[in-house]
Amino acid sequence: MMQKVINPPQSEWPRLCQRAGKNYAELHKAVLPIIQDVKQNGDRALRKYVERFDKVWVDNFRVTEAEFAEAEKQVSEELKKAIKTAKYNIAKFHLEQKEAVKKIETTEGVICWRRSTPIAKVGLYIPSQSAPLFSTILMLGIPANMAGCEEIVLCSTPNRDGKLHPVILYTAHLLNIRHVFKCGGAQAIAAMAYGTETVPQVYKIFGPSNQYVTAAKQLVSEDGVAIDMTAGPSELLVLADDTANPVFVAADLLSQAEHGTDSQVMLATSSESLVHAVLQEIDQQLPLLPRQDIARQSLSKSTALVFANLQEAMAFSNEYAPEHLIIATANEEVLAEKVVNAGSVFLGNYSPESAGDYASGTNHTLPTEGFAKSFSGVSLDSFVKKITFQRLSPKGIRNLGPVIEIMAEAEGLHAHKNAVTVRLKALQS
Amino acid sequence: MMQKVINPPQSEWPRLCQRAGKNYAELHKAVLPIIQDVKQNGDRALRKYVERFDKVWVDNFRVTEAEFAEAEKQVSEELKKAIKTAKYNIAKFHLEQKEAVKKIETTEGVICWRRSTPIAKVGLYIPSQSAPLFSTILMLGIPANMAGCEEIVLCSTPNRDGKLHPVILYTAHLLNIRHVFKCGGAQAIAAMAYGTETVPQVYKIFGPSNQYVTAAKQLVSEDGVAIDMTAGPSELLVLADDTANPVFVAADLLSQAEHGTDSQVMLATSSESLVHAVLQEIDQQLPLLPRQDIARQSLSKSTALVFANLQEAMAFSNEYAPEHLIIATANEEVLAEKVVNAGSVFLGNYSPESAGDYASGTNHTLPTEGFAKSFSGVSLDSFVKKITFQRLSPKGIRNLGPVIEIMAEAEGLHAHKNAVTVRLKALQS
Repeated sequence: MMQKVINPPQSEWPRLCQRAGKNYAELHKAVLPIIQDVKQNGDRALRKYVERFDKVWVDNFRVTEAEFAEAEKQVSEELKKAIKTAKYNIAKFHLEQKEAVKKIETTEGVICWRRSTPIAKVGLYIPSQSAPLFSTILMLGIPANMAGCEEIVLCSTPNRDGKLHPVILYTAHLLNIRHVFKCGGAQAIAAMAYGTETVPQVYKIFGPSNQYVTAAKQLVSEDGVAIDMTAGPSELLVLADDTANPVFVAADLLSQAEHGTDSQVMLATSSESLVHAVLQEIDQQLPLLPRQDIARQSLSKSTALVFANLQEAMAFSNEYAPEHLIIATANEEVLAEKVVNAGSVFLGNYSPESAGDYASGTNHTLPTEGFAKSFSGVSLDSFVKKITFQRLSPKGIRNLGPVIEIMAEAEGLHAHKNAVTVRLKALQS
Repeated sequence: MMQKVINPPQSEWPRLCQRAGKNYAELHKAVLPIIQDVKQNGDRALRKYVERFDKVWVDNFRVTEAEFAEAEKQVSEELKKAIKTAKYNIAKFHLEQKEAVKKIETTEGVICWRRSTPIAKVGLYIPSQSAPLFSTILMLGIPANMAGCEEIVLCSTPNRDGKLHPVILYTAHLLNIRHVFKCGGAQAIAAMAYGTETVPQVYKIFGPSNQYVTAAKQLVSEDGVAIDMTAGPSELLVLADDTANPVFVAADLLSQAEHGTDSQVMLATSSESLVHAVLQEIDQQLPLLPRQDIARQSLSKSTALVFANLQEAMAFSNEYAPEHLIIATANEEVLAEKVVNAGSVFLGNYSPESAGDYASGTNHTLPTEGFAKSFSGVSLDSFVKKITFQRLSPKGIRNLGPVIEIMAEAEGLHAHKNAVTVRLKALQS
């Protein structure tokens, strides 16, 4: 069960904010041979590792049109409708992230602008071992389509029959993602990073997963393949006062705790009585959950903290930098203004974290392990590069040229200066 | 001198697009002990490596107010004025990158938005060995200030007298950057990543440099410190036709070639006669340059390519993905629309690449080595995190709750579903 800590002094905060962490050096050692093998031997190596780790021999990795059609029939109408509603909301939210081209005249005759350009080839890794995470296909596939990525490749772990879950295939098909491959784990990351006979090479790889996949993403990123982020175990911090409903808070903490045994949930509050009520509620709700064993293990690494006031609790939250932050307090909008480090924030008693996981519209691919101090979650931006452009007219180079000449000379870069000088001379003649 | 290639078949393009590359595994081995030493032993280790690599014993790394005041006197008024003009333009261009908060109602009662929040602590690494790169202070410091980063730390290599170049100090002071430290190299990166008694710890490190500094940035990034990018040697591709001025093209190629012996410049054209004229011009201009030895070495690794037409040359440029791209052709705006992979693009005969290096307003910290396929250059975005927020009203959770319940159940995450169910139940009673 959750640990309880009353009024921790600031000197204790760093320890309380520590995540379990991974020994990436060890993980790299385990994963590197797989990556090198797939890089060199393509499909043959990929097939070998899929057999070893996913326990199935896959002749053809590529999902066929017949398989998509079959999946379509196996998903209930109710679920299809829910997925379409989520798709609508996610698209609506991400569409606002589109940036119009604005041409700016910085000096008379000097016009600069930037244009968002899609990353041509992207790869989506969709875990589907303990659960078929089709919601992640929505979170990555919708902005990838919106950005205009030409080639979207999706890899996901096959089951023991060598198939992908119907709802994975249905969701991919709904988003017009047709390059879908039955392979998971570090070997799938390598396949997308370097390409095989079957799996196309991509420029950027997205998607959450276990520590082996994360280590594989780190390794291929050293080879120049971009990755969305280093994603660790899921986290939630609930900031609450006496106005919070302990039933809701307990349910929210459990919803995050069920993700994996290494998930971490934190309750930061000004109210010791709320802690008691929440812990009691957890006792009530936990035994009813199918994944109670997982939740119990993550709760044992989790903490309820009582602070002198909400300002202090908020300061702790900013130091912790949670992936998800629920603020269930009076005047939560005022506290929301104080959020400096968090991935995604949920305000008020009726905003469960699971709304953002599935359907409200915000992205659920978010920075964990304190990375919210310097990283954003996935957004439309993650699927584009913003290329800058500039045009100087003869008047522009006349106006700005002397400035460039002086600065280039001061940096000792005379050829930089000369590129201006030859133009100014030509305009004089 | 530059190699000349006529009509290379597409099968040859990957080889022609290859960069020299670095053996990062070897570099990591060289740099790791320095990083670990500074991490463990702070200032004492930092002082030792500054003495070893920069050949100077520095008692106090922190630049004093007296040093800033002294530097102010040593910079010419002409240079100060040029720097202020550049500052104005860079600020004007980057200010347009500010994103207003837009609240979006995705479903009735479900409101989502995102807010840009500064990365609280950032570190700027400014090389100043072969030249004092004060322009990079502008390119990093201006957006850092604009984003609202609370603590901006700057490290730069001291000279043999244990001082920083006056123009480095002047520019830092102009941007109100007061945490300036006299240390360079991998040891400075480690100091900013982990903090020492003197140098504050930061969350993200920016700035170009040599391969050791780049390797150090890679290593600390594995430890959770964000970095702007893995920056390799500078590059330029000039796309030109018969309308280009060979004097300008030669000057542009030389301006990039003088950066370092590992810089690479490419000329891609539809006109063989232009290649001859440009090569002749290079012969004329090169002997007049102070850094001609450096430029000569980079030219020996550079190539002029003649294609059947400009469309093919553009396709090659997109495959090469240059850091800088000059398009000096008739109808260059039409070709500009075809740019898919490039860091920054310069249009027309009067837009030298050095304009963007110093003063036009665009940022000069750009992706090299083909990373422009998936990375943007530095912008205001690089200094903020975009945190998403959401609020569901009772009506919102009533509208969207059932969708979340269905999806959570389909993913086998019952506690996620329950976080909605307990709220819907409470609203029914």
